[in-house]
Amino acid sequence: MITTGSRKYATKSIVQLTREKYPKIKRNDSFKKLEQEDINFFKSVLQNDNGVVTNKDDLEFFNEDWMRKYRGESAVVLKPKTVQEVSQIVKYCNEKKLAIVPQGGNTGLVGGSVPVFDEVILSLSSMKKIRSFDKVSGILKADAGLILENADIYLSERGYIFPLDLGAKGSCHIGGNVATNAGGLRLLRYGSLHGSVLGLEVVLPDGTILDSMHSLRKDNTGYDLKQMFIGSEGTLGIITGVSILCPARPKAFNVAFLGVSSYEAVQKTFVHARGELSEILSAFEFMDSKSQKLTAKHLNSPHPLDDPFPFYILIETSGSNKEHDDAKLESFLESAMENGLIDDGIVAQDETQVQTLWQWREQIPEASTIGGGVYKYDVSLPLPDLYGLVEAVRAKLNDANLIGETDEFPVVDAVGYGHIGDGNLHLNVAVRRYTKDVEKVLEPFVYEWIQSKKGSISAEHGLGFQKKNYIHYSKSDQEIKMIKDLKNHYDPNGILNPYKYV
Amino acid sequence: MITTGSRKYATKSIVQLTREKYPKIKRNDSFKKLEQEDINFFKSVLQNDNGVVTNKDDLEFFNEDWMRKYRGESAVVLKPKTVQEVSQIVKYCNEKKLAIVPQGGNTGLVGGSVPVFDEVILSLSSMKKIRSFDKVSGILKADAGLILENADIYLSERGYIFPLDLGAKGSCHIGGNVATNAGGLRLLRYGSLHGSVLGLEVVLPDGTILDSMHSLRKDNTGYDLKQMFIGSEGTLGIITGVSILCPARPKAFNVAFLGVSSYEAVQKTFVHARGELSEILSAFEFMDSKSQKLTAKHLNSPHPLDDPFPFYILIETSGSNKEHDDAKLESFLESAMENGLIDDGIVAQDETQVQTLWQWREQIPEASTIGGGVYKYDVSLPLPDLYGLVEAVRAKLNDANLIGETDEFPVVDAVGYGHIGDGNLHLNVAVRRYTKDVEKVLEPFVYEWIQSKKGSISAEHGLGFQKKNYIHYSKSDQEIKMIKDLKNHYDPNGILNPYKYV
Repeated sequence: MITTGSRKYATKSIVQLTREKYPKIKRNDSFKKLEQEDINFFKSVLQNDNGVVTNKDDLEFFNEDWMRKYRGESAVVLKPKTVQEVSQIVKYCNEKKLAIVPQGGNTGLVGGSVPVFDEVILSLSSMKKIRSFDKVSGILKADAGLILENADIYLSERGYIFPLDLGAKGSCHIGGNVATNAGGLRLLRYGSLHGSVLGLEVVLPDGTILDSMHSLRKDNTGYDLKQMFIGSEGTLGIITGVSILCPARPKAFNVAFLGVSSYEAVQKTFVHARGELSEILSAFEFMDSKSQKLTAKHLNSPHPLDDPFPFYILIETSGSNKEHDDAKLESFLESAMENGLIDDGIVAQDETQVQTLWQWREQIPEASTIGGGVYKYDVSLPLPDLYGLVEAVRAKLNDANLIGETDEFPVVDAVGYGHIGDGNLHLNVAVRRYTKDVEKVLEPFVYEWIQSKKGSISAEHGLGFQKKNYIHYSKSDQEIKMIKDLKNHYDPNGILNPYKYV
Repeated sequence: MITTGSRKYATKSIVQLTREKYPKIKRNDSFKKLEQEDINFFKSVLQNDNGVVTNKDDLEFFNEDWMRKYRGESAVVLKPKTVQEVSQIVKYCNEKKLAIVPQGGNTGLVGGSVPVFDEVILSLSSMKKIRSFDKVSGILKADAGLILENADIYLSERGYIFPLDLGAKGSCHIGGNVATNAGGLRLLRYGSLHGSVLGLEVVLPDGTILDSMHSLRKDNTGYDLKQMFIGSEGTLGIITGVSILCPARPKAFNVAFLGVSSYEAVQKTFVHARGELSEILSAFEFMDSKSQKLTAKHLNSPHPLDDPFPFYILIETSGSNKEHDDAKLESFLESAMENGLIDDGIVAQDETQVQTLWQWREQIPEASTIGGGVYKYDVSLPLPDLYGLVEAVRAKLNDANLIGETDEFPVVDAVGYGHIGDGNLHLNVAVRRYTKDVEKVLEPFVYEWIQSKKGSISAEHGLGFQKKNYIHYSKSDQEIKMIKDLKNHYDPNGILNPYKYV
């Protein structure tokens, strides 16, 4: 997760081309190479200003991923404004066998939104209109390129909230959120997009427009086609419109920041919180002590809790009655203290403190880049095993003598944090430099460890380019066979987001 | 919705065979007819007692649907106990082109769970084990044939609740619930099964076992295959196992029963309730006056409210703190009274009263059969239009002189009720006898009316046999094309639940 709206370059250095970094991956020769006649066709379709971008400097942003790990060499970015334009482009590309990368806010963390070679980049950034909003039902219909934060601001003015929140909200698109099945900070409360998305408009690989922009909470007439596209990372179709059910905006928010003595206590506090806070519990995040040390350096400010603790918990409640929520939280904290679950804690007294406390969770990803780079793992694990992965990785790095405080060690530290409520761990291995030694210790060890616990190697970030080859650690042969079969069935030419996902 | 666990026969008369009632529908000659050698094979696979049912009397229950509208002529019911047995049966049937009807509790309302001709009935009723339950995460894994009520009782003893509740809970299976994407009474609070089901075990049309029994809240590795089977009504595969996330059981329940003066007031009260009761609102049901009159006759007891009202509302809250919930409900009722939204109301004082008040909503389906029969429509509509359908139908029946209090009129009354929170209306046309005159007034009028408002012709009951030909009122040609394409792709022989759905 990236915590700021604007892109931050860790260094000014040029990102290595993906094809150079991964020389074993070859361009698919069945794909046509872009020619001037193709550009001419795109220009004839996109007659709006800047609809066809070919300027080298302008292309840079679209060719590079947010993490600055991957760089493609696309010679053209297309910015359609309507679904019909998207349809015409895709139909043409399918006929000519021009490969396409659909791109939203380009904030993905697994290299899924940038070209690997010379794929045409189809950016949804010019499709950003709100189509309709129903104040009674809370159903929002919008273009896929609408920025998440803009959607939420629009909704907040009308008493509603977008059922998804994540660090990249200032840049990411709601269409990209759906295409990657983004999870984020509010999943515990509002559930997954598979539940809240009511309809989609999608351009299929042959250019056909699938208009499924329904606005019904219940509709049992035929297969729920839209579900296939949620989390398909642009490999089955290009999402151009989203219809989504938005909940009423809570009137009251509380945030508590707690210190506990063990991972065992983190788990017990979670069970206790779910029982006591129940319907108002909207986030239960945990952070280990090392993540907080990095964040303290990064923020250059004193930690909210005076004494250090092995683990920290951030609890957010949101409800309709501040008085009741305060009472529930107070009673929960008292009993958790009495039962010896938590050792110390602070409750935000105003909106500023809410933001400040959240920083100690939300800034960890950036803090993890303090040494220069970071290996990021975003995994699902059964709760009892969740933190075990961080300990196992740290032990392996120690054994290999790769982790330490001085510059001779490539690894700064391995830190763990994440959404306990969702069984979702973020493991960040902060490094001073990317080395083969470190990579050999990490992989496939991390994936094998997850597999042995029946976890998922990608809880919310998706597969993209980075994890394409690791899917078998989380899915069975039969599942992978069906996934490939679906892909081949809908996109026989394989033009949509190739070299990724499956 | 059927409100009792045991089947009630409205009459003792024999149900007409579906093939006689619908002579235009022909048996697909590419399907093999059952022979003794097939029975022998099934017996070799199902060596448990009663695994192969061929006794005519015993077959009756499985051949007839719950509504007693449809009757097939299957000569065999198979009751496997393991997924391997299901797999062997399906593989054999696919090779021999023997058509299969998967059957759960056989409580469906659209004729989806019974054979149309001589299809083999594959009953999941002997697969009813709980496989595992995780007390920390609330994840239940169970066989598909587990009865919903048994699942909920098991969970209630462990502080959890099944995220679905419906009238047929005493008979319906959780596998059938998933296969039909059942909605029910708690959808407002816990969302749809697309959000809460975490994994499925499915036997595909060729007999392949798809083991996707995951237990992770977040897993973004590949297409979410299980979603395809949710709501597919046994046409893409046979669900044999379900992994589902269960919420903590609320500690406090409240039920209020209100009288209001107009449908306008129903809508306004809903918006008000969602704002004030927010996270504790777990049901918002409405009933019209005519539905209550029928129910009063059926229950033979005085209505909870002394004076009659054009519309009634049942509100349920469920939360973790009784005191807070009481305060919220009280404050909501006071302000709703002050604003003139509601005219009268009663709040249940104990569990018995909770049950009694719910009866006035839950008994409507049975009360609607008071004249002998009922035409049932279960539709989704935009909230402002929802009750308009009932008024339009009543007006049409009046114009045609078909509705009245005496026996010469075929129609007793047309009543409306349902889940306002989900935009889901149940329209019941209570009749003394099924006549072509009435049917001509109702259809396609009802479907066309729904289509004109962009509603769904089946909110939660599904398509089954009854609504197969009406899907185009709710889905576009492109959607129907894709649905058929998916069906053909996965089940090229069409052996799974033929003559239905698409």
